[in-house]
Formats: sequence, C-alpha cells, structure tokens
Amino acid sequence: MSLSQPAFLAPAERLPALRAQLKRQGLDGFVIPLADEHQGEYVPERAQRLRWLTCFSGSAGVAVVLGESAAIFVDGRYTLQAEAEVDGTLFARHHSGTQTPEDWIGGHLRAGMTLGYDAWLHTPNAVKRLCDACAKAGGNLEACAANPIDAVWSDQPPPPRAPVVGHDLEFAGVSAEEKRRSVAANLDGASACVLSAPDSIAWLLNVRGGDVPYSPLPLSFAILRADGGVDWFIDPRKTSPELVRHVGPDVSLRPVDEFAAAIDATAAGNNLIRVDPAASPSWIFDRVAAAGGAVARGQDPCALPKSCKNPVELEGARAAHVRDGAALTRFLAWLSCEALDGRVNELSAAEALAGFREGNELYQGPSFPTISGAGPNGAIVHYRVSEKTSRQLENGSLYLVDSGGQYLDGTTDVTRTVAIGAPSEEQRRCFTAVLKGHIALARARFPEGTTGSQLDALARLPLWHIGLDYDHGTGHGVGSYLSVHEGPQRIAKTANCVALKPGMIISNEPGYYKAGAFGIRIENLVSVVALGAEPGSEHGSLGFETLTLAPIDRALIDADDLNDRETAWLNGYHHRVRESLTPLVDADTASWLARATEPIG
Amino acid sequence: MSLSQPAFLAPAERLPALRAQLKRQGLDGFVIPLADEHQGEYVPERAQRLRWLTCFSGSAGVAVVLGESAAIFVDGRYTLQAEAEVDGTLFARHHSGTQTPEDWIGGHLRAGMTLGYDAWLHTPNAVKRLCDACAKAGGNLEACAANPIDAVWSDQPPPPRAPVVGHDLEFAGVSAEEKRRSVAANLDGASACVLSAPDSIAWLLNVRGGDVPYSPLPLSFAILRADGGVDWFIDPRKTSPELVRHVGPDVSLRPVDEFAAAIDATAAGNNLIRVDPAASPSWIFDRVAAAGGAVARGQDPCALPKSCKNPVELEGARAAHVRDGAALTRFLAWLSCEALDGRVNELSAAEALAGFREGNELYQGPSFPTISGAGPNGAIVHYRVSEKTSRQLENGSLYLVDSGGQYLDGTTDVTRTVAIGAPSEEQRRCFTAVLKGHIALARARFPEGTTGSQLDALARLPLWHIGLDYDHGTGHGVGSYLSVHEGPQRIAKTANCVALKPGMIISNEPGYYKAGAFGIRIENLVSVVALGAEPGSEHGSLGFETLTLAPIDRALIDADDLNDRETAWLNGYHHRVRESLTPLVDADTASWLARATEPIG
Repeated sequence: MSLSQPAFLAPAERLPALRAQLKRQGLDGFVIPLADEHQGEYVPERAQRLRWLTCFSGSAGVAVVLGESAAIFVDGRYTLQAEAEVDGTLFARHHSGTQTPEDWIGGHLRAGMTLGYDAWLHTPNAVKRLCDACAKAGGNLEACAANPIDAVWSDQPPPPRAPVVGHDLEFAGVSAEEKRRSVAANLDGASACVLSAPDSIAWLLNVRGGDVPYSPLPLSFAILRADGGVDWFIDPRKTSPELVRHVGPDVSLRPVDEFAAAIDATAAGNNLIRVDPAASPSWIFDRVAAAGGAVARGQDPCALPKSCKNPVELEGARAAHVRDGAALTRFLAWLSCEALDGRVNELSAAEALAGFREGNELYQGPSFPTISGAGPNGAIVHYRVSEKTSRQLENGSLYLVDSGGQYLDGTTDVTRTVAIGAPSEEQRRCFTAVLKGHIALARARFPEGTTGSQLDALARLPLWHIGLDYDHGTGHGVGSYLSVHEGPQRIAKTANCVALKPGMIISNEPGYYKAGAFGIRIENLVSVVALGAEPGSEHGSLGFETLTLAPIDRALIDADDLNDRETAWLNGYHHRVRESLTPLVDADTASWLARATEPIG
Repeated sequence: MSLSQPAFLAPAERLPALRAQLKRQGLDGFVIPLADEHQGEYVPERAQRLRWLTCFSGSAGVAVVLGESAAIFVDGRYTLQAEAEVDGTLFARHHSGTQTPEDWIGGHLRAGMTLGYDAWLHTPNAVKRLCDACAKAGGNLEACAANPIDAVWSDQPPPPRAPVVGHDLEFAGVSAEEKRRSVAANLDGASACVLSAPDSIAWLLNVRGGDVPYSPLPLSFAILRADGGVDWFIDPRKTSPELVRHVGPDVSLRPVDEFAAAIDATAAGNNLIRVDPAASPSWIFDRVAAAGGAVARGQDPCALPKSCKNPVELEGARAAHVRDGAALTRFLAWLSCEALDGRVNELSAAEALAGFREGNELYQGPSFPTISGAGPNGAIVHYRVSEKTSRQLENGSLYLVDSGGQYLDGTTDVTRTVAIGAPSEEQRRCFTAVLKGHIALARARFPEGTTGSQLDALARLPLWHIGLDYDHGTGHGVGSYLSVHEGPQRIAKTANCVALKPGMIISNEPGYYKAGAFGIRIENLVSVVALGAEPGSEHGSLGFETLTLAPIDRALIDADDLNDRETAWLNGYHHRVRESLTPLVDADTASWLARATEPIG
C-alpha cells in the first residue's frame, strides 16, 4: 500500500492491480460479492466493487479471483448480460445455477492456498459455504483486515449521506414505538438484536432516506434491546433535529464508529444477541463472539411483521396502484398510437412512461430501473436499456415493459407485454400460456400454512404443458414505500418454508423468453387475503387480491385457449381496471381503455 | 437386571417396569422409536417396542418416557388410532405436526437430567435433533449400552430368520454384478459404503427374503467396497448353498456378529466410509469414528438407482398391474352385487379381495395391510380393520379400500372409493374434487429437474378451492417386488430436493377425509416417463404413465364439474382399463366392467 497507484485504472488494468494487491496482503485469491455491509439489493456506488472490477452492471453476481484464473457467476437473469459486458479473456463466465462459485473454488483453488474475503460483505451462511469449499480443496479461507479492492480503487466514491426523514403515521399505519415494543417482545430470550438490513431499520423506526437508488433507505445499523430501546448508528450528517424528535427519546442516535464498541458492551458477560445469519455480515458474528457474547441465530425479527402490511398500508397500496395504473394506462394508450409509426424506441418509451408517472400524487421516483425491451431485448430477463442497445419497437414484435414507482403510500411493480402490430401465432400461444399461469395463481385458494414454493407450479403448469418454462422466480415480496424486493416470503421453485400470511404483498409474474426473438411477462402485485373457513372446512383459506390495475393486451390472448373460469377472471379484472382508472385519465385514454378492457370470449 | 422380572407384563405394568429399569441403568428417561436396526417401515416383532410399551399399533410413532411423565407422538394418519389404542392416563398423546418430541423434551426434561437412547434404533440426524433438544433443556442425551425395554420385555420374540432366495434376472433386469460395479463406481472417493437398509441390500444383490411382513426383505448388513466386492453380514440360518452360488464369489457371506469388527477393519487408517445419515443407525457412525475412520455422509448410493426402474422392471410392473387390476375389478364387481344386501362388512370385504388376488400368477402376498374402511372408518387415514371395529357397508355410505400385492414382477398399491347405494351431493362434490386433483397430477407435464414437492399442489388445488385438504403426502415411491414405500422421491407439501427421473414409480393418491363421516382416496401408481423435447422447447419434458388399472366409481363423479380435458383423461383411462382387463375376467365381471367404464360427459 506504500506503492503509488495510478489515479484511475482502466478496466483492463484493474484485475492485474487487484492481483498485485492480493500478493501484498499475502493472499492467493479474493471473493468479490455484489454487496455492501447491509446486504441490500441496491448497493451504493462506493460498494460497486464487482462492477468496477468486471464491468458487469447487473444486480446480482459474484466473482472469484485467483492468481492464474478468475470467474464471474451470475444467475439466469443475467447470463446474456454478463456475456455482453464482461471480458471473457479475463473472467470465465458461469451460470450460477450450473456452476456455483463453491464448485469453481473446489476445482481451481490448490492445496495450501489462502482465499481472502471481506467479513463486512458476506453473511455467515455464505462464509460457511466458502469455507467448506476451501477446506474441500485443501485451502483456507481468511477474513481480510482491509478490502484489497478499496486499496487499488483510487477513485472509489465516499459513502452516501442523503438526509433521513420521518415516515408519517398516515402512511406507516403503526407507530414506531408500537413496532419497537412488539418486535422487542419477540426476541426469544435474547437481550438484544443487531439489525443491519436498511429496510428493517427504516420500517422499525418509521424513517426513510435516500442512500441507495430506487429504495428510500438510509444506510445504518441498529441495536434493539429487549426493553424496546434502540441505539441507532448513523452518520450525523444525515440526521436533523426534526428526525431526532420524530424517533423519540427511546432511540439514541450515535455515530457509526461507535457501533463496534456498542456490540462489545452489549455482548459482554455472555449476553445472548440475536443476529440474522442470512442477512447480516459475518463481521457482526465475529465481533459478538470476540466480545464474549453468544449469538442467537434467527431471522431478522422485523422481516415477518414488515412483510404483513397493516390495514393502513394495504389501503395505501390500493390507492397507489390506482394512480400508478392510470399512469401506465396513459402510457399504453400513447404507445398504441405512437409505436405503429415506428417512431418509438426502447429509450423513448421508457422516458415517456417515466413522464406519465412524474406528475402522480405522492410519487417519489421509480422503484427500480425500468426494463424496456423490444423484440429480442425482451428476452433478456433483467435487460437495462442504453443508447447503445436501444431498439425500435417494430411491427410484428413484442414490447416488454417492467417498471414501478415509489409512492409515499406504497411501492408498485408491474410488467406488461404488448404486441406492436399484429402478433404471430407463436407469440399468442406463448402469451396465452403465461396468462393462464398468471390467472391460476391469481385465482388460487389455499389453506393457511401454505408456502410460495408450494404454489409456484400453478403459474408454470400451462407453460410446462407446451414444453416451456422460465428461469426466474414467480413472485417476490414488495415493501410499503420500501424495497421493491423483500422477504421472507417468495414464490419460486426453490424451497421456502415461510407460510403466506394475510397482508403480505407479493408479485405474480410468470413469463416466457425465447432467446433472440421475444420476451413475455405478465406481472401484477397481489396481497394475501384471508377468505375465512367455509362450512365443512377444517382450516381457514387464503387467497390473493390483485392490486395492480392495467389492461392486459387482448391482441395477444387466444380466447379459445382459456377455459370459462380463466375468461371470467380476465373479464372481471378488466372491468375493475376500467372502473378504477377511467376517472383518472383523459378522454382519449379513457376511450382507448374502454376498448382495451372489452370482455373476450 | 439381577432382580427377577415377571414372565409376562400386562400392558399397564410395562411403563412402571421400564421406569424401574431406567433407574437401574442410571437414566432419567428413554426414547422409544418405532424402528429396528435397519430403519425399514415394517419392523419385526422383536423390535415392536413402541407397541409393547404403549399398545399403539400404527406404523409410525415415537414415545418419550421420563420419571413423572410420558408422551407418544404420531402423525396425522394416526391421531385417531392413537386415541383409541393408547391409555391417555399413562401417555400424553400428541400430533407430531403440532408438537414434536423435541418440543416436548424441551418442556419436560429438567436441567441435569439424562435421556437415554438406543444408538441402533436412531439415525444420526434423529440423534442430533434429540441432542439439541436435551441441550436446550440443560440436560444430556446418552447412548445406552443395552436397550432398557429388552431388559424388562421378558417374552420378546427372537430375530426373524426367513430363508433368503435369489431374485431372477428375468424380473430384476440387471445383474447384481453390474449393480455392484456401478454403485461402487459412485462412492465419491470413499473406500467403502456401509449399507443397512434391507431394500437397498436386496436390490443390490438381487435377493429377496421374508424377515418382515409385506416386503420380501432379508434383514442384514453389508459393506460394499470400491472394487465392487461385498461383505454381507447375515444370519447363516437364513442362507443356502444356492444362495451362495446366486450371489457369486465377490460377495462374502459372514455372520452378523462379525459386522462390528469388519467396520473397524474397514475404517482403520483413516479410511473414508460412506454412510447415509438419514437411513443408517448412529451406532455405525460412532463405530467408524471409534475405529479411526472418517464418515462420508451421503445418501445410500443404492437409493437413486433402485428408484429408477430398468425396462425389464417397468415391463414387469405393467404386467403385474394388469393381473392385479383384474383381481381388484373382480372384487369391485362382486362388491357391487353383495354390498347392496348389507351382507358385507369391512372384514369380509378385505377377505374377499385377498381371495381374488390369491390365485394371481406370480402373486406372493399383500404388499401392506389392507385398509378396508366403511363410512366413518374410511376417514381414519391408515385404518386397520379388526373384529372389534369392523362395520357393515351401509347404503348411503362410502367404502374406501387401499390394498396392494407383491408379485415377483412388481409391487402394486391401489385405492378405490366406492359408493354403497346412492351417494350424497356432498360425497360427490368431494370425490370429484379429489378426482380433479388426481387427474391434474396424472396429466402433468413438467421439465427435467422438477421435484415432487413442486407438483404436490396440483393434486390439492381443486380441494383447496372448496376449502378442503388432506393431511398426508400425495405420492410415495414404490419398489419393484420390494418395499411398497421407498425413496428418495416423494410428492408432498414438505420440501424434497430429489428430481423426478424416468423410470421412477410413485403413487398419485389425493384424498379427503371428513372425520366421523367418510373417507375418499383415489390412488394409482404412475411411472415417470420422458416425453422428449418439443420443437421450440429448451428442455426435455417428463410426464407420468399410469400403471394401475381399475375403474373409478362413476356414481361418485359430478361430470358437470369436470372440464373437457379431465373428462377426456377419465374416459381414456377407463377405455384402457376395459381393454386391458376384460380378457382376464369372467363374463359377469366383464359385463359389469363394461358398464363401469362407460364414457361420461
């Protein structure tokens, strides 16, 4: 580190520079996750180490660098993107579903080698997997004292410091005091809980911030004691006297550099401290142990209550979805006129949609980067349009748009796929199968205790029956003016043992992607609702209320392939869309909407 | 143990006698599983310790005895039966789904107490759970040198010693030599594998026996070496010179009391020994460790190849199902005449069915105790008829019969539910929902890699939609002239990560049970078949071939509630049933069958 570094490293110089730095730190390799200290989905610029090193700009991935070899691992959403962005001569590019980093380490780390990692950036669960992989290869895993990328990334940005504000009770529905009390009462005997997930802290304290894009989250740490009091470790430059008043006297604002000492003090004397091994950095676990405390490994105690929206949040979600649906509908009506002339491309479409949302009441900004994909770009699951890739919306192609908004009263996330001109038979057949899956899930009724994993196949079955599938989950939880992706519930092929509970908001988004040709996804948000028990039933039943309101392109539906119940669902949904949105849109849009929501069948 | 014991203890004397014995062994409690050293489903009389102690005669359960309290835990199939059989003043009776033995131990074991267990009767996975529960309560778990029940069960039967015979290649399809070679090649670097599952050993060596009821299994242990050779530890009184010739020179028959020393010799020198922590007794793990070996924990390497039937086994299964279906159909035709006069009860029905199977070619006996349940007894999921409980088949009631046969060419398992007289609207509504679930699973098409857990909801959804469900799995694997329940695949709510593979045989058995009123189950066995990839599809598809052939009671089907595809499936199935079985049945049965399989809708 005493060697002088060039001020700015060109992309190709970064891997060699990192390798030189690893040598200086006595390491044979290093793992680079896409994560910050808070394990959130959106990480601040300062923590974009994976992108700096590999040029991969997707939202999930991990790289492993050894002296002679290096590899990046991305999931099915990003395999095409990684091939486009990452230099294959520097990094082997793998689908993490077929080759995991751990497999690769097993095949490349040699006996006696030491692989480094940054304990702030990995959960203990992830460290355990890495550790097992290294042990299997006869090597070692070692927590680095300092991140070697930071040592060579000379123009690394500083940590963000956006102002933090209170989230009003009129939107939050339940006071922070009540939340702190009820979460503290559920620590299962632990004397305190360390929180590092930004959305958990924001939910618990009824505060919002702006440290990361797309989610109104302040980055901070908190220690919640069993008495309901909180020590909140946050950069004082982000706070204000109003905020101090808002959080009240039971929440002590403290500078972040006091966090380590506070853990030591809380843990001392063999105190039991609850920490989430799937969501918190292993650094916290190491620190609690070093301070003589015991870690009670357990799910972040805010995760489940945060996911079950209270009545005020649900009412807010409904209202936000009406406003958001009106904006999307105005966009779709506009598109139906403009796109036919070939004057619209992916970029201009995304800009137009952003414009329609801008004026909306309580709108704060997009909830994630809009996916605006025409033709073959629609088949890139988490495509991000740029000047370089933007395609015209051409006749005979499909256009897929996945977007959402952050509103003070709720977070939205919606995908529509529209035919530009007349669709092909194949496009209609695939779209109809996706729609049948979407409807099967929307209509599902199931007993209390059912998990999203159990329901996943309902959305896939119509595709499976024609030999198709999609390589992503079917549904993710969504926050209330918080992260657009949240747990603990999830609808996916992979096992998830969290039962769906009333008030949870989750997406319903089956799709189909034909590489090089077109992409289809139909995404609505739904909330879990209790349907009560029928006479003669032995359990309470749950179902979904669809929150998202926007027409589904009738030109892409093969009405003959829908059964009566599917047709009834679609017509009922379109009726509700029309009734809810017509009062909010202009006359031209209203007449387009009337046509777009006409009953089929 | 020097104290004299009465020769026979009456049921009420057994718990006090066990408690006195625990005191003598210095234990504060003891865990009594329903298991022998081989973790098979059917355990020999000698190992029926749970039944001896508690009088519970179901096929799954566990009891925990402490000085002041005792409890038995059974799953949803057996809660009613446990209430009927177990003295509630001696044992608290719990549904293991709502209170696990581990929970109960946590609430009842006091700090410093020692809970004993027999290391031959628990897997290490189970021991780990017990150990954690004891540690949480501040107590200890200790392996007993001798089983305290054996010390007080003075009339405990001796181990079984049924003769072992070869299983001919004409039925097995693949030679034992080829199986040994291919399994040995998949030990992942272990120098040997210890096998204790009777069906794995029977499959591997192409042998069959009769040590337990209903499954043609010899009880034994085996050590398979990486060179394909086997040391087979089996009571010499069960073997014969023909058997020695059948297994060949690479299989050394050795007495069971040499098993421990053979493990020591195999493990010595830090050798890696593969053992299944979910299927083998923890005694083996302890022994390998004590002998200086290392255990490679991994699934029994016979489990997956055994589950994927070879073409000869599949052809055998088809042939066995035709013969078995003919017997069941003769029974159903007989029942349709006899039951109306009220002359049939559950016992006489089960006896009649047994008689119809008796004469079948290659028939060896029932594959499990027939469940013959009329009216409310049909709602007891694993009901076992006795003189005391046998009910008349009354008009207006449903009769549920779940039975199966062991044939040299295959194992069958089939459930039919029939209306005695005219069924009620409610019975038809529920039966039709069960049938819709059965058909959804039978018709399912799904990509390679799909697990049974992912498909489970397909069979439940029509029930869920009317607020109903069933408290058992949807499908279990079935052996080829082996156990009627085998892994590793399973269709159930609980997570199972084993992908369905071509050749696997599995049951499709949704049901519905209205306590005190009626039970419904429709069970066919199906095999997983490769459907190939459609043009335009990105993966190979799998589906099911239904093997079981017997009519489904049309009187219980509400044809208006079936959609076109469901109706087509039912009519196609009934057509196949008629075509396959008519040549094998008498003229009266044939004409009944023609009516019973007429198309509906």
